[in-house]
Amino acid sequence: MNPLGKTIYLEMTAPTEEDNRPSEERILQALRDKLSLSEDRPSAPRSDNSETDSPAEEIRMSLRVLRRLHSVCVMGNWKLTVSLSWTGSGWEIVGIEPGRAPLPPIGLAVDLGSTSVVMRMLDLETGNLLGEAGAYNHQIRFGEDILTRIFYAKDQPPHLEEIRQATVDTFRELMDLLQAKTGRDPRKALSMTVAGNTTMIHFLLGLDAFSVFQSPYAVVTLDPGFYRGTDLDLPIEGWVYCYPGLANYLGGDIISGIIATGLYREEKISLFFDVGTNGELVVGNRQFLLCGAGAAGPALEGGVVHTGMRAAEGAVEAVRMEPAGEEAPDADGTLHPVSVFHLKVIGGGTPTGICGSGIVDLLAELFLYDWVDLTGILQPDKSSLIQKRCLEDTGREELAVCYAPGLWFYQSDILEFIRTKAAAATMMEYMLDSSGIPMDEVNHFYMAGSFGAHVSKESAIAIGMYPDVERDRIISAGNSSLEGAQKLLLDRTLLKEIQRITGLMSYVQFGAVDDFLTRMRAAEALPHTDIRRYPSVMKKKQQLQKKRF
Amino acid sequence: MNPLGKTIYLEMTAPTEEDNRPSEERILQALRDKLSLSEDRPSAPRSDNSETDSPAEEIRMSLRVLRRLHSVCVMGNWKLTVSLSWTGSGWEIVGIEPGRAPLPPIGLAVDLGSTSVVMRMLDLETGNLLGEAGAYNHQIRFGEDILTRIFYAKDQPPHLEEIRQATVDTFRELMDLLQAKTGRDPRKALSMTVAGNTTMIHFLLGLDAFSVFQSPYAVVTLDPGFYRGTDLDLPIEGWVYCYPGLANYLGGDIISGIIATGLYREEKISLFFDVGTNGELVVGNRQFLLCGAGAAGPALEGGVVHTGMRAAEGAVEAVRMEPAGEEAPDADGTLHPVSVFHLKVIGGGTPTGICGSGIVDLLAELFLYDWVDLTGILQPDKSSLIQKRCLEDTGREELAVCYAPGLWFYQSDILEFIRTKAAAATMMEYMLDSSGIPMDEVNHFYMAGSFGAHVSKESAIAIGMYPDVERDRIISAGNSSLEGAQKLLLDRTLLKEIQRITGLMSYVQFGAVDDFLTRMRAAEALPHTDIRRYPSVMKKKQQLQKKRF
Repeated sequence: MNPLGKTIYLEMTAPTEEDNRPSEERILQALRDKLSLSEDRPSAPRSDNSETDSPAEEIRMSLRVLRRLHSVCVMGNWKLTVSLSWTGSGWEIVGIEPGRAPLPPIGLAVDLGSTSVVMRMLDLETGNLLGEAGAYNHQIRFGEDILTRIFYAKDQPPHLEEIRQATVDTFRELMDLLQAKTGRDPRKALSMTVAGNTTMIHFLLGLDAFSVFQSPYAVVTLDPGFYRGTDLDLPIEGWVYCYPGLANYLGGDIISGIIATGLYREEKISLFFDVGTNGELVVGNRQFLLCGAGAAGPALEGGVVHTGMRAAEGAVEAVRMEPAGEEAPDADGTLHPVSVFHLKVIGGGTPTGICGSGIVDLLAELFLYDWVDLTGILQPDKSSLIQKRCLEDTGREELAVCYAPGLWFYQSDILEFIRTKAAAATMMEYMLDSSGIPMDEVNHFYMAGSFGAHVSKESAIAIGMYPDVERDRIISAGNSSLEGAQKLLLDRTLLKEIQRITGLMSYVQFGAVDDFLTRMRAAEALPHTDIRRYPSVMKKKQQLQKKRF
Repeated sequence: MNPLGKTIYLEMTAPTEEDNRPSEERILQALRDKLSLSEDRPSAPRSDNSETDSPAEEIRMSLRVLRRLHSVCVMGNWKLTVSLSWTGSGWEIVGIEPGRAPLPPIGLAVDLGSTSVVMRMLDLETGNLLGEAGAYNHQIRFGEDILTRIFYAKDQPPHLEEIRQATVDTFRELMDLLQAKTGRDPRKALSMTVAGNTTMIHFLLGLDAFSVFQSPYAVVTLDPGFYRGTDLDLPIEGWVYCYPGLANYLGGDIISGIIATGLYREEKISLFFDVGTNGELVVGNRQFLLCGAGAAGPALEGGVVHTGMRAAEGAVEAVRMEPAGEEAPDADGTLHPVSVFHLKVIGGGTPTGICGSGIVDLLAELFLYDWVDLTGILQPDKSSLIQKRCLEDTGREELAVCYAPGLWFYQSDILEFIRTKAAAATMMEYMLDSSGIPMDEVNHFYMAGSFGAHVSKESAIAIGMYPDVERDRIISAGNSSLEGAQKLLLDRTLLKEIQRITGLMSYVQFGAVDDFLTRMRAAEALPHTDIRRYPSVMKKKQQLQKKRF
């Protein structure tokens, strides 16, 4: 444990005529003695490549503390607890209280997503999680998607200020939620770590983010480092650190994810993939790190698809098809086994739409049960649930499958989703191939983000979105952005690792490359035009066919 | 010139797809290149004991600048001027403007006195003085003397806040005055240095100063270092540095004075004396520095004495006696030469009182013309201007001399002033003797402060306040507190000298020592009970006598 904030209890003697050092000096001296004592312990003869900092770490005192100093010293009879916050170049004493502090110090770790923001409160002494709270990003008022917000703020300082304020309001809402949950005052936080994409960090700092989306993509900052909480309008005692990003499309949330998985420390090669509206990909180990990013398509978050929705109450999040044990005649009088959809709905009520993980399940099941062919075309002869429907928006008729009463998944939805998953799968394939890394040498596939956390591995493999490898090599990394923020909050030596990681990374551009587009075309099938790549999927499909007929 | 603030003009190329570094990084890189280039020049092979800082100086950007970055870069077509302020541990970019800044950067140096505050505006490129302004310290509202203010603020945070605000208001008044004088906006100051005594610095920072006057004199801070101007409520862009003090009675104004005189660099021994209500004394050279402080008595600033006043309009600041060429009979009918007082009055009008330098002159003349004897007793037989007068306050009768129409200097005033000058002289004598330094070995006597600046050397020697040495060894150091603040503003390498100076200083306690009191008693004469110490004075007295008779 080497957290970004800590409290230290000091027992000093009251000043005398013989020792009348100023209160500030008395405290700084006592603190330095204690810090060098505790930091020298682990490695008695200090080695050159020491991960800990030199004992001569700068310590200064905030003016706020200096002003309370004398009365607290007297109140506590020169026994007191100081709170330290790491500023990037040293410690700042940001709090002081008489006697021994009754509660351990706390810190906050934040995943600043464009849709939702999650904040954790941690005990900085034990590393224990005290509470977690999530909320929608208040920026949504200014646009569901990030680009709308960027255009809203562009060259309009008052609009930018509204968005900045909305970001801060989200933080304040989360702090209130955490206070209600834990009974601890988040304003006492001695440090806060924030991981977010480049746009989100720009908005938090009050910076115009238009450069994130406009060539040549020279953003304002990729490495803002530490700022005082109050400078950012965040009502906390300590300093705030924003994870650095590598490029406009590869932000601090990804660097934080790399820290979370620890892949940068391993000898074996791993792949990290955060897939959402954009996909960010990192492949490497302790020696090298390749990274890339591309538009994976909003379909993964339930966008574009007609009945698609966010993973919120009412969304179908999982789908299984089961033969019902009956048969029904089709138009020609041929009997077919009746299959039904078993749905898992967020909140448990009536489904009102389907989110990303539900779509992947649905598509996998349709494919495995032959309701769509390899190219994703619906087979109306397979079920009466597949019918021609008139699309409300275009007025055109197309095939659709009814996956829940009144909820239809259209042919065009399927094709759109196949393009999306093809883009995602091709990013992985392209990066591995172009760097000469065989799929076999990838020890772990970390699937990050909300999508990676909720999607079924089997279904994602079945549709050819994930590669067909041993299942335990695919690891759902969860909210790795938040995990990385938490990890750093508790271990300040990671600041050096972060520098090493960003220095090590080389950026691979996708998308525009011809080869990439050819590969993507080949991937626009279920699971792939080259079915030999998906042996386990084809085997499973055969087994299901045997079972049914 | 190595000032605490500077502007640097940067010519960069606009971002391209090949070089799309973030604006912040682009500027920091360009700046580092330029700084290391210019700092490497003077000493090509960097020596170990280099006075300049390492080229890897930390540079960071204020959030305010970061927010303006993009628009300024575009406006100036990537040619821009950045303003740097030294923070104590590195540079902070505190300002930015498109193109080449039309005006050189400015800084402010302040002597924060308890009575008056003087501020200078300096050109940080040439070191030229752009303007100087002085004002009464607004704290005077809360008490003429410092102790009244300290008691007003003691344990009363709202009162302390009033005093802090009054201090800041004084600074703002001076900034307004400087703006009117120079046409330059002082809010653009890239750095401010403040020299003041320990109480004044406490009040500026908003700290209870009671500890300055209460045993064991453990104050809140003696080395506040650097704070952002805005943190101190001062409306300037840059950072503010307060000179450190050595002890409660030996504040930053004295350390600043030591820097101003440069005595800490010399091989020969010098003495520095700032005499006012309190006297602060430093003796030493590059190898050692002894210091001490004591109550010299308010008489030096015109206090205590009945018609005494501050050096303000109407005050007699210089006195000369001349025989009028006539003789007048006394009570016994004996004829005496009539001497008259030639007075210099501040403002040139009718005198309303007498200030410190006037008193020293008056006393010297009275002594040289035998109107008082060696012990300071008025000789009524010498002039009809010496008469018995009834004191308004006590109702007691005592002798007094009329130095201007209606203005009387009383016997008790004389004795009080002799005690005061004896204290001052004994401090010097005691410190030199107790450290075994013969008077002869003191190369320079720097007489600092307002008193030192205005008093006549000859008169001060005549009354035995200054030692009887070659006149050119006595140097009026003027407002050395302000000079030192200015020197530091223009040369940040002095920060290391300041550390060295405070480390070198050893504090000698006066006052309570028996030997000190014995010596002081011996000094309570004009010029001293041991007149052999003042050969030039005795000679002059003899010459005057010859001239008259």
